[in-house]
Amino acid sequence: MAASNVIKQSNGPVPFSDRLLGGRALDLDVWSIYNALALPPDTVNLGQGYMNFPPPQWVKEAADEAIASTVGNHYSHPKGRIRLRKAISDYYSDQFTNLGRKLDPETEILVTSGANMGMYSVWGAFLDPGDEVILFEPYFDQYLASITFNAGTPVFVPLHPPAGHTASHGPSAASEWTISIPELKAAITPRTKMIIVNTPHNPVGKVFTRRELEQIADVAKEHNLLVMSDEVYDCLTFDGAEHVRIATLPGMWERTVTVGSAGKSFAATGWRIGWLIGPPTIIAPTLAVTTRTVFCTNSPLQEAAAAGLEGAPKRHYFETQRKEYEERLAVLMKVFDKLGMSYVIPQGSYFILLDISDVEWPEDYPFPATITGRGKDFMFCWFVAQEIGVSAIPVSEFYCKEHQHIGEKFARFAFCKDIATLEHAGERLQKLKQYLKPKAANGANGATH
Amino acid sequence: MAASNVIKQSNGPVPFSDRLLGGRALDLDVWSIYNALALPPDTVNLGQGYMNFPPPQWVKEAADEAIASTVGNHYSHPKGRIRLRKAISDYYSDQFTNLGRKLDPETEILVTSGANMGMYSVWGAFLDPGDEVILFEPYFDQYLASITFNAGTPVFVPLHPPAGHTASHGPSAASEWTISIPELKAAITPRTKMIIVNTPHNPVGKVFTRRELEQIADVAKEHNLLVMSDEVYDCLTFDGAEHVRIATLPGMWERTVTVGSAGKSFAATGWRIGWLIGPPTIIAPTLAVTTRTVFCTNSPLQEAAAAGLEGAPKRHYFETQRKEYEERLAVLMKVFDKLGMSYVIPQGSYFILLDISDVEWPEDYPFPATITGRGKDFMFCWFVAQEIGVSAIPVSEFYCKEHQHIGEKFARFAFCKDIATLEHAGERLQKLKQYLKPKAANGANGATH
Ligand SMILES: Cc1ncc(COP(=O)(O)O)c(C=O)c1O
Ligand SMILES: Cc1ncc(COP(=O)(O)O)c(C=O)c1O
Repeated sequence: MAASNVIKQSNGPVPFSDRLLGGRALDLDVWSIYNALALPPDTVNLGQGYMNFPPPQWVKEAADEAIASTVGNHYSHPKGRIRLRKAISDYYSDQFTNLGRKLDPETEILVTSGANMGMYSVWGAFLDPGDEVILFEPYFDQYLASITFNAGTPVFVPLHPPAGHTASHGPSAASEWTISIPELKAAITPRTKMIIVNTPHNPVGKVFTRRELEQIADVAKEHNLLVMSDEVYDCLTFDGAEHVRIATLPGMWERTVTVGSAGKSFAATGWRIGWLIGPPTIIAPTLAVTTRTVFCTNSPLQEAAAAGLEGAPKRHYFETQRKEYEERLAVLMKVFDKLGMSYVIPQGSYFILLDISDVEWPEDYPFPATITGRGKDFMFCWFVAQEIGVSAIPVSEFYCKEHQHIGEKFARFAFCKDIATLEHAGERLQKLKQYLKPKAANGANGATH
Repeated sequence: MAASNVIKQSNGPVPFSDRLLGGRALDLDVWSIYNALALPPDTVNLGQGYMNFPPPQWVKEAADEAIASTVGNHYSHPKGRIRLRKAISDYYSDQFTNLGRKLDPETEILVTSGANMGMYSVWGAFLDPGDEVILFEPYFDQYLASITFNAGTPVFVPLHPPAGHTASHGPSAASEWTISIPELKAAITPRTKMIIVNTPHNPVGKVFTRRELEQIADVAKEHNLLVMSDEVYDCLTFDGAEHVRIATLPGMWERTVTVGSAGKSFAATGWRIGWLIGPPTIIAPTLAVTTRTVFCTNSPLQEAAAAGLEGAPKRHYFETQRKEYEERLAVLMKVFDKLGMSYVIPQGSYFILLDISDVEWPEDYPFPATITGRGKDFMFCWFVAQEIGVSAIPVSEFYCKEHQHIGEKFARFAFCKDIATLEHAGERLQKLKQYLKPKAANGANGATH
């Protein structure tokens, strides 16, 4: 059903690779449908997860310094610049307590061109055709095509919303979304190679508990699997939620690669600086892939990211940033409370899920072809952008076809925006009230829609 | 024979992909053997092709401006920032004369994370397992692993040095290196999908003539092949050599993707900004790959590259740069002339090949394990770095095993360095004299070595 922006040529000159036919690679991606260009110009963009504020001044100054130099403008070592690798070791070593020593910048750290390219390189380094990778749904959509490009097969295990959750239930906690370990075990086959964990989780906002991670770890150890732990939101946990790194659980260091991103940590999504932390048996093959694909990551912004990690502790940068995000989150929660709508309170990341089950639009509303045939959430996001002027992202995009009905109930709003923008969005969103089904308690429920 | 920095685990936890076993991906790459770390600290580095001078001030200022903004630090459109795509269209459209119109920034231009990642993405978009890609040797070493990572099979067709060329022959012209069209035709099979052309050529310095490109084009058209034309050195041609774009030959636009690099154009190899120009049928599938791998290229340095292309014509930037490179080249040519050694005079790029056949070192010279068993050029480069303090790159690295004997006679020196550095290198290189075989004309030739 999904629109394709490219059609496999049948009589054109040279056909593209079958590789592009899997993993929704040629579907018009959700970011293109809901990006600034496709929407009315004054839309308040709470869709894509980038900030409308800049990186901190002292971090940007380090970028300028690098640009003012000569070597800061030229090729870096494919492993990453030594200053950044040392900064990562200094900043993170304490958090990998089980090692009882510092992370080795030569063999246990790899700088990558964003977390995205880091993860792609791991799959390139480890997947043989037909190898299976387990994704918990909703999953960050980039995983899918990256895995199929490397001839891997994604296998989906859903996170379940709390059983009692309904649109009229009021807010529920992201912690109540759970995976079923029997479902995880049932998904394992002799071809399973890797489990992907994402904590704090995009888009649910869940921070996996130690107990949950221990159960996943047990499965990984029993079946000799790799674990990719996407922790790009590790510095964005709220209300004291404890971020546990699965790599620090017994027996897990040697099979886990932990993913980080300067984009998320320093409000610099366009710098494309990420990093991988893991044992040499994972880092060395992955380095072979990054070296032979991008060769190295851009140099000046590596210097800036290094300055960021070096300066963050003494400036209490991450503590301050966390408080700022908690204030931003509070703005949106108030908006949804005022509307009387259900939502999922995140423990981390900068996303909040709104339950849209009770929103109704005119039956003859003219949706474009890119939306028709997709889930209710796709229609909601289009409708709200056009009629109310706020953009969000449909959550069914983060589910496989079979499980899209779970995601269809939710739209994702990003709160990595300044307070004024969020309040402006909030005012607009109050217009949603007129499109809400009357509550069941009011007598007339929406069962006939 | 080549050293591996990683061993395929036999009893370790999770083995890496077989993909890494092809394309020399796990060989210790030539850059790591001959990079600054492996060599004595005061080595004059004429090995890796990056400049020891910075990008122009006015281009760097645009980077600083972007960093001072908010949007300049956040995600770009996966196609690239519109300012850069427009700048590429404005700068290059005149050179794609056959189109008779401007390049469309939405469908015919793709910004990539360096030329490397752009080329990788094209292979990802077009190669199915077993598809064959023709490389002319010596080839830029990154092609090889990128092709095999995408399940393609490289097929090698050598460039032949001029027949009369010998170590005592004196300088010869890069234009005299030629491909044999019968050899090219013989390499075509039903699985051939693409020919890679690199002009100006690294490392030979050859600029392919219109006639040669026409012959290659005819083969591509006859067999319905794609052509990837790696023209990252398009702005570095010397002595009036005419750079012809194969995409501009009749019937070639629709099957050709042209590769460019801000790193080469603006002395900014560490910015990782490259671009692809081609028809929508090539750009769209390639965009699908870049979007799902790196997602987008770093934002601030895209703005800087845009400023570079915008400002270059009125500042006569490329004309000035060309003259500067001609002066740099002249320094090295004089050095080699004084030594009485043969070399290949480049028509473009920033590399010069020195014929090393007549150099001899002590038979018991202690070469490290990474060198032993490789060609004479590997030994030369190591010996010269250690004993004379100048680094260069062995050319056999750019040949397949069967053809390495052709490359073994040459070492590649980069002249993208300031004059003082090149002169300093030149003084040191005079020490080579004591290691040269006496010329045959002197009676005692080296046949017994
Ligand atoms: C869960 C998750 N992982 C990875 C990324 C990508 O990070 P980067 O921008 O560093 O590539 C994102 C970005 O949205 C994300 O949400
Ligand atoms: C022939 C050739 N192509 C491509 C590249 C890579 O360019 P970039 O640094 O933009 O990835 C190089 C760099 O040395 C090269 O010599």
